[in-house]
Amino acid sequence: MRVIVGSRDKERARSVVASWGVAADAVEADDYAAAVSRAGVIVLTVPFTSVDPTLAEINAQLGDGSIVIDVTVPIDFAGGRMSMLDVAEGSAAQHIRTRLPAHVELAVAFKTIPARLLGDFSASFDCDEFVCGDSDRAREQAAALVRALPGLRPVDIGPLSRARYIEHMTALAVAINRKHKVHDARFRVLGLR
Amino acid sequence: MRVIVGSRDKERARSVVASWGVAADAVEADDYAAAVSRAGVIVLTVPFTSVDPTLAEINAQLGDGSIVIDVTVPIDFAGGRMSMLDVAEGSAAQHIRTRLPAHVELAVAFKTIPARLLGDFSASFDCDEFVCGDSDRAREQAAALVRALPGLRPVDIGPLSRARYIEHMTALAVAINRKHKVHDARFRVLGLR
Repeated sequence: MRVIVGSRDKERARSVVASWGVAADAVEADDYAAAVSRAGVIVLTVPFTSVDPTLAEINAQLGDGSIVIDVTVPIDFAGGRMSMLDVAEGSAAQHIRTRLPAHVELAVAFKTIPARLLGDFSASFDCDEFVCGDSDRAREQAAALVRALPGLRPVDIGPLSRARYIEHMTALAVAINRKHKVHDARFRVLGLR
Repeated sequence: MRVIVGSRDKERARSVVASWGVAADAVEADDYAAAVSRAGVIVLTVPFTSVDPTLAEINAQLGDGSIVIDVTVPIDFAGGRMSMLDVAEGSAAQHIRTRLPAHVELAVAFKTIPARLLGDFSASFDCDEFVCGDSDRAREQAAALVRALPGLRPVDIGPLSRARYIEHMTALAVAINRKHKVHDARFRVLGLR
């Protein structure tokens, strides 16, 4: 798997990637437009409030067959208080769907696992991550990316309209972190066969 | 612990309780008003659409120091499709708060564990249950009831305003049950100390 980190600031992205100490042909950095035009699967990891300008910038580069994986959550930390933003479409994922070209396939993943563990290359998640979407192909791609992380199991919950349940789960994880003074609250589903 | 099952139909409740085969002095049945007036802790287990008429019936019996544990979830299964009902207050728990006398303390519990397991006296849950509320005393009482079930651990997530996260988690559990053709999807939190 080759990864291209897309960024507004290509040079800054390159120095961040270089600091990771991974092989230069495994992860590279480029500006948004170049990264997206060269990628088949685009993982959208911007803050929710940056979704609209980012899509405006990359939509023209999303070709037929492109898959977008939405990682955004409509949570705000203004004034140190966590709150969920009201999203007219019901969820960040549905908001994104209405702003993507119709030929692009969308799935949700990586919304609930702790960011800190994502940044720790030695971590094992030992938990589940929720996937949803209306495209089987995009959902399967999202599940494959989840499986690529150590100890992370994808749990498919069905159509994109269920993304709001996943986004509330992120808020629940943040609430648990704050109440219990921990950083890595995450979830395991029991009762699956 | 003595349990009084409150019901609209006392005779039907008595025959249901008798069918459980537990000691008559451990669990009895009575009508709503009598059950509530004799109880210090009232567990509200009616469907969400029955909350308003039920509270109208029992509110006068809720004395000073009464604790109400809210188990309701605003989920609808009309036409076989699961959907969450829009609740103006943000959650079923906050809706109930606005309809309870101010002197009654409220906490949330038992919203996410599968009903089927609750009805199986030999089951061990081996999962977590989420508790929230603005009253420390009510939250501690809710946690104690959760601990009374085998294999169930309470996870306190803080104020009542967070109840909506828990209620969305119930919807997520139902979505998993339907998508994966199972009946007992439930959750364990990892990362707690």
